[in-house]
Amino acid sequence: MLGRVNHIAIAVPDLSAATATYRDVLGAKVTAPQALPEHGVTVVFVDLPNTKVELLEPLGDASPIAAFLGKNPGGGMHHICYEVADITAARDRLVAGGARVLGDGNPKIGAHGKPVLFLHPKDFYGTLIELEQV
Amino acid sequence: MLGRVNHIAIAVPDLSAATATYRDVLGAKVTAPQALPEHGVTVVFVDLPNTKVELLEPLGDASPIAAFLGKNPGGGMHHICYEVADITAARDRLVAGGARVLGDGNPKIGAHGKPVLFLHPKDFYGTLIELEQV
Repeated sequence: MLGRVNHIAIAVPDLSAATATYRDVLGAKVTAPQALPEHGVTVVFVDLPNTKVELLEPLGDASPIAAFLGKNPGGGMHHICYEVADITAARDRLVAGGARVLGDGNPKIGAHGKPVLFLHPKDFYGTLIELEQV
Repeated sequence: MLGRVNHIAIAVPDLSAATATYRDVLGAKVTAPQALPEHGVTVVFVDLPNTKVELLEPLGDASPIAAFLGKNPGGGMHHICYEVADITAARDRLVAGGARVLGDGNPKIGAHGKPVLFLHPKDFYGTLIELEQV
Protein backbone atom coordinates (compact mmCIF):
# COMPACT_ATOMS: atom_id res chain seq x y z
CA MET A 1 0.00 0.00 0.00
CA LEU A 2 2.68 2.55 0.97
CA GLY A 3 4.33 4.04 -2.08
CA ARG A 4 7.11 6.62 -2.38
CA VAL A 5 8.02 8.99 0.42
CA ASN A 6 6.59 12.17 -1.08
CA HIS A 7 8.15 14.44 1.53
CA ILE A 8 9.45 14.73 5.05
CA ALA A 9 8.02 17.81 6.77
CA ILE A 10 10.03 19.84 9.26
CA ALA A 11 8.36 22.60 11.28
CA VAL A 12 10.60 25.62 11.86
CA PRO A 13 10.11 28.87 13.78
CA ASP A 14 11.93 31.00 11.19
CA LEU A 15 11.52 29.88 7.58
CA SER A 16 13.90 32.42 6.15
CA ALA A 17 16.73 31.35 8.46
CA ALA A 18 16.02 27.63 7.93
CA THR A 19 15.97 28.08 4.16
CA ALA A 20 19.35 29.81 4.30
CA THR A 21 20.75 26.94 6.39
CA TYR A 22 19.60 24.28 3.94
CA ARG A 23 20.83 26.29 0.97
CA ASP A 24 24.10 27.73 2.24
CA VAL A 25 25.29 25.33 4.94
CA LEU A 26 23.88 22.03 3.62
CA GLY A 27 24.23 22.97 -0.05
CA ALA A 28 20.74 21.93 -1.12
CA LYS A 29 18.44 23.37 -3.78
CA VAL A 30 15.53 25.24 -2.20
CA THR A 31 12.40 26.80 -3.69
CA ALA A 32 10.95 30.24 -3.08
CA PRO A 33 8.53 30.39 -0.10
CA GLN A 34 4.86 29.76 -0.88
CA ALA A 35 2.23 31.13 1.51
CA LEU A 36 -0.70 28.72 1.84
CA PRO A 37 -3.14 30.64 4.06
CA GLU A 38 -5.88 28.01 3.64
CA HIS A 39 -3.47 25.45 5.18
CA GLY A 40 -2.02 27.80 7.81
CA VAL A 41 1.58 27.43 6.67
CA THR A 42 4.26 28.96 4.51
CA VAL A 43 6.29 26.29 2.72
CA VAL A 44 9.75 25.97 1.21
CA PHE A 45 10.75 22.75 -0.54
CA VAL A 46 14.26 21.35 -0.32
CA ASP A 47 14.67 19.38 -3.56
CA LEU A 48 16.68 16.19 -3.20
CA PRO A 49 17.38 13.61 -5.90
CA ASN A 50 14.83 11.06 -4.62
CA THR A 51 12.34 12.99 -2.50
CA LYS A 52 11.90 16.38 -0.85
CA VAL A 53 11.96 18.00 2.53
CA GLU A 54 9.18 20.48 3.26
CA LEU A 55 10.09 23.31 5.63
CA LEU A 56 6.93 24.64 7.29
CA GLU A 57 6.43 27.91 9.17
CA PRO A 58 3.11 28.80 10.84
CA LEU A 59 0.91 31.28 8.98
CA GLY A 60 -2.08 32.94 10.63
CA ASP A 61 -3.82 32.34 13.94
CA ALA A 62 -4.95 28.75 13.50
CA SER A 63 -1.90 27.10 12.04
CA PRO A 64 -1.94 23.29 12.35
CA ILE A 65 1.74 23.37 13.33
CA ALA A 66 1.45 26.02 16.07
CA ALA A 67 0.94 23.49 18.88
CA PHE A 68 3.92 21.44 17.68
CA LEU A 69 6.16 24.51 17.72
CA GLY A 70 4.80 25.41 21.15
CA LYS A 71 6.16 22.08 22.40
CA ASN A 72 9.29 22.21 20.20
CA PRO A 73 10.15 25.91 19.95
CA GLY A 74 13.38 25.27 18.04
CA GLY A 75 11.57 23.21 15.40
CA GLY A 76 11.56 19.51 14.61
CA MET A 77 10.51 16.73 12.28
CA HIS A 78 6.73 17.02 11.99
CA HIS A 79 5.45 14.29 9.65
CA ILE A 80 6.25 11.88 6.82
CA CYS A 81 4.06 11.85 3.71
CA TYR A 82 3.70 8.61 1.76
CA GLU A 83 2.07 8.32 -1.63
CA VAL A 84 -0.81 5.89 -2.16
CA ALA A 85 -2.62 4.99 -5.36
CA ASP A 86 -6.15 5.01 -3.89
CA ILE A 87 -6.65 7.00 -0.71
CA THR A 88 -10.17 5.73 -0.01
CA ALA A 89 -9.04 2.10 -0.28
CA ALA A 90 -6.04 2.94 1.92
CA ARG A 91 -8.28 4.61 4.50
CA ASP A 92 -10.64 1.63 4.59
CA ARG A 93 -7.77 -0.80 5.07
CA LEU A 94 -6.25 1.34 7.83
CA VAL A 95 -9.50 1.72 9.72
CA ALA A 96 -10.12 -2.04 9.42
CA GLY A 97 -6.62 -2.50 10.90
CA GLY A 98 -7.54 -0.37 13.91
CA ALA A 99 -5.76 2.88 12.91
CA ARG A 100 -7.35 6.24 13.59
CA VAL A 101 -7.67 8.85 10.85
CA LEU A 102 -7.50 12.45 12.11
CA GLY A 103 -10.44 14.81 11.56
CA ASP A 104 -13.69 13.44 10.21
CA GLY A 105 -12.01 10.45 8.56
CA ASN A 106 -12.46 11.70 5.01
CA PRO A 107 -9.70 12.82 2.62
CA LYS A 108 -9.19 16.58 2.27
CA ILE A 109 -7.41 18.49 -0.48
CA GLY A 110 -3.88 19.00 0.84
CA ALA A 111 -1.22 21.63 0.31
CA HIS A 112 -0.26 20.09 -3.06
CA GLY A 113 -3.83 20.12 -4.38
CA LYS A 114 -4.27 16.35 -3.96
CA PRO A 115 -6.39 14.27 -1.57
CA VAL A 116 -4.65 13.65 1.76
CA LEU A 117 -5.31 12.03 5.11
CA PHE A 118 -3.41 12.20 8.41
CA LEU A 119 -3.11 9.18 10.71
CA HIS A 120 -2.98 9.36 14.51
CA PRO A 121 0.67 9.35 15.65
CA LYS A 122 -0.16 7.20 18.68
CA ASP A 123 -1.09 4.37 16.32
CA PHE A 124 2.29 4.65 14.53
CA TYR A 125 4.90 4.89 17.30
CA GLY A 126 4.91 8.65 17.60
CA THR A 127 5.13 9.39 13.87
CA LEU A 128 2.49 11.59 12.27
CA ILE A 129 1.83 9.99 8.86
CA GLU A 130 0.24 11.78 5.92
CA LEU A 131 -1.05 9.78 2.98
CA GLU A 132 -1.37 11.55 -0.36
CA GLN A 133 -3.11 10.14 -3.42
CA VAL A 134 -0.96 10.71 -6.51
CA MET B 1 26.18 18.82 -1.24
CA LEU B 2 23.14 16.93 0.10
CA GLY B 3 22.35 13.89 -2.03
CA ARG B 4 19.56 11.33 -1.71
CA VAL B 5 17.65 10.73 1.49
CA ASN B 6 19.20 7.39 2.40
CA HIS B 7 16.73 6.72 5.22
CA ILE B 8 14.42 8.22 7.80
CA ALA B 9 15.01 6.66 11.22
CA ILE B 10 12.18 6.08 13.68
CA ALA B 11 12.94 4.97 17.24
CA VAL B 12 10.37 2.52 18.62
CA PRO B 13 9.99 0.87 22.01
CA ASP B 14 8.84 -2.48 20.54
CA LEU B 15 10.39 -3.40 17.21
CA SER B 16 8.33 -6.52 16.71
CA ALA B 17 5.04 -4.63 17.15
CA ALA B 18 6.20 -1.72 14.97
CA THR B 19 7.32 -4.09 12.21
CA ALA B 20 3.92 -5.77 12.26
CA THR B 21 2.21 -2.36 11.99
CA TYR B 22 4.27 -1.30 8.96
CA ARG B 23 3.79 -4.69 7.30
CA ASP B 24 0.18 -5.52 8.12
CA VAL B 25 -1.54 -2.16 8.63
CA LEU B 26 0.47 0.05 6.25
CA GLY B 27 1.14 -2.74 3.73
CA ALA B 28 4.88 -2.12 3.35
CA LYS B 29 7.73 -4.55 2.68
CA VAL B 30 9.87 -5.02 5.80
CA THR B 31 13.15 -6.86 6.34
CA ALA B 32 14.04 -9.33 9.10
CA PRO B 33 15.45 -7.66 12.25
CA GLN B 34 19.22 -7.22 12.40
CA ALA B 35 20.91 -6.88 15.79
CA LEU B 36 23.82 -4.42 15.64
CA PRO B 37 25.31 -4.66 19.13
CA GLU B 38 28.27 -2.41 18.24
CA HIS B 39 25.75 0.35 17.39
CA GLY B 40 23.39 -0.36 20.30
CA VAL B 41 20.33 -0.96 18.12
CA THR B 42 18.28 -3.64 16.43
CA VAL B 43 17.11 -2.51 12.99
CA VAL B 44 14.27 -3.34 10.59
CA PHE B 45 14.14 -1.63 7.20
CA VAL B 46 10.86 -0.63 5.60
CA ASP B 47 11.61 -0.73 1.86
CA LEU B 48 9.86 1.98 -0.15
CA PRO B 49 10.21 2.69 -3.86
CA ASN B 50 12.50 5.73 -3.44
CA THR B 51 14.06 5.42 0.03
CA LYS B 52 13.69 3.48 3.25
CA VAL B 53 12.49 3.90 6.79
CA GLU B 54 14.70 2.44 9.49
CA LEU B 55 12.89 1.24 12.59
CA LEU B 56 15.30 1.26 15.56
CA GLU B 57 14.93 -0.48 18.92
CA PRO B 58 17.53 -0.03 21.70
CA LEU B 59 19.95 -2.94 22.20
CA GLY B 60 22.17 -3.19 25.28
CA ASP B 61 22.88 -0.80 28.12
CA ALA B 62 24.42 2.11 26.20
CA SER B 63 22.08 2.46 23.24
CA PRO B 64 22.37 5.84 21.50
CA ILE B 65 18.57 5.96 21.22
CA ALA B 66 17.81 5.20 24.90
CA ALA B 67 17.69 8.87 25.95
CA PHE B 68 15.38 9.72 23.03
CA LEU B 69 12.97 6.95 24.02
CA GLY B 70 13.17 8.12 27.63
CA LYS B 71 11.79 11.47 26.46
CA ASN B 72 9.46 9.93 23.84
CA PRO B 73 8.38 6.61 25.35
CA GLY B 74 5.94 5.84 22.55
CA GLY B 75 8.63 6.35 19.89
CA GLY B 76 9.17 9.05 17.31
CA MET B 77 11.11 10.27 14.30
CA HIS B 78 14.77 10.20 15.32
CA HIS B 79 16.91 11.37 12.40
CA ILE B 80 17.20 11.83 8.63
CA CYS B 81 20.21 10.40 6.80
CA TYR B 82 21.39 12.15 3.63
CA GLU B 83 23.98 10.74 1.25
CA VAL B 84 27.08 12.76 0.40
CA ALA B 85 29.85 11.97 -2.08
CA ASP B 86 32.77 13.03 0.15
CA ILE B 87 32.12 13.08 3.86
CA THR B 88 35.36 14.84 4.80
CA ALA B 89 34.71 17.66 2.34
CA ALA B 90 31.13 17.85 3.63
CA ARG B 91 32.34 18.02 7.23
CA ASP B 92 34.83 20.78 6.43
CA ARG B 93 32.16 22.84 4.67
CA LEU B 94 29.70 22.36 7.55
CA VAL B 95 32.21 23.31 10.22
CA ALA B 96 33.21 26.38 8.18
CA GLY B 97 29.48 27.27 8.07
CA GLY B 98 29.27 27.14 11.87
CA ALA B 99 27.61 23.71 12.26
CA ARG B 100 28.63 21.37 15.06
CA VAL B 101 29.51 17.74 14.34
CA LEU B 102 28.66 15.34 17.20
CA GLY B 103 31.42 13.32 18.88
CA ASP B 104 35.04 14.06 18.05
CA GLY B 105 34.18 15.54 14.66
CA ASN B 106 35.56 12.65 12.62
CA PRO B 107 33.53 10.21 10.52
CA LYS B 108 32.81 6.81 12.08
CA ILE B 109 31.80 3.58 10.37
CA GLY B 110 28.01 3.53 10.65
CA ALA B 111 25.39 0.80 10.83
CA HIS B 112 25.61 0.23 7.05
CA GLY B 113 29.41 -0.18 7.07
CA LYS B 114 30.01 3.26 5.53
CA PRO B 115 31.50 6.48 6.97
CA VAL B 116 28.91 8.61 8.78
CA LEU B 117 28.68 11.82 10.80
CA PHE B 118 25.88 13.25 12.92
CA LEU B 119 25.18 17.00 13.07
CA HIS B 120 23.92 18.83 16.14
CA PRO B 121 20.11 19.12 15.96
CA LYS B 122 20.20 22.63 17.49
CA ASP B 123 22.04 23.84 14.38
CA PHE B 124 19.32 22.36 12.12
CA TYR B 125 15.99 23.42 13.66
CA GLY B 126 15.57 20.38 15.89
CA THR B 127 16.39 17.76 13.25
CA LEU B 128 19.20 15.29 13.92
CA ILE B 129 20.96 14.90 10.56
CA GLU B 130 23.18 11.96 9.64
CA LEU B 131 25.47 12.22 6.62
CA GLU B 132 26.61 8.98 4.98
CA GLN B 133 29.30 8.72 2.33
CA VAL B 134 28.10 6.41 -0.45
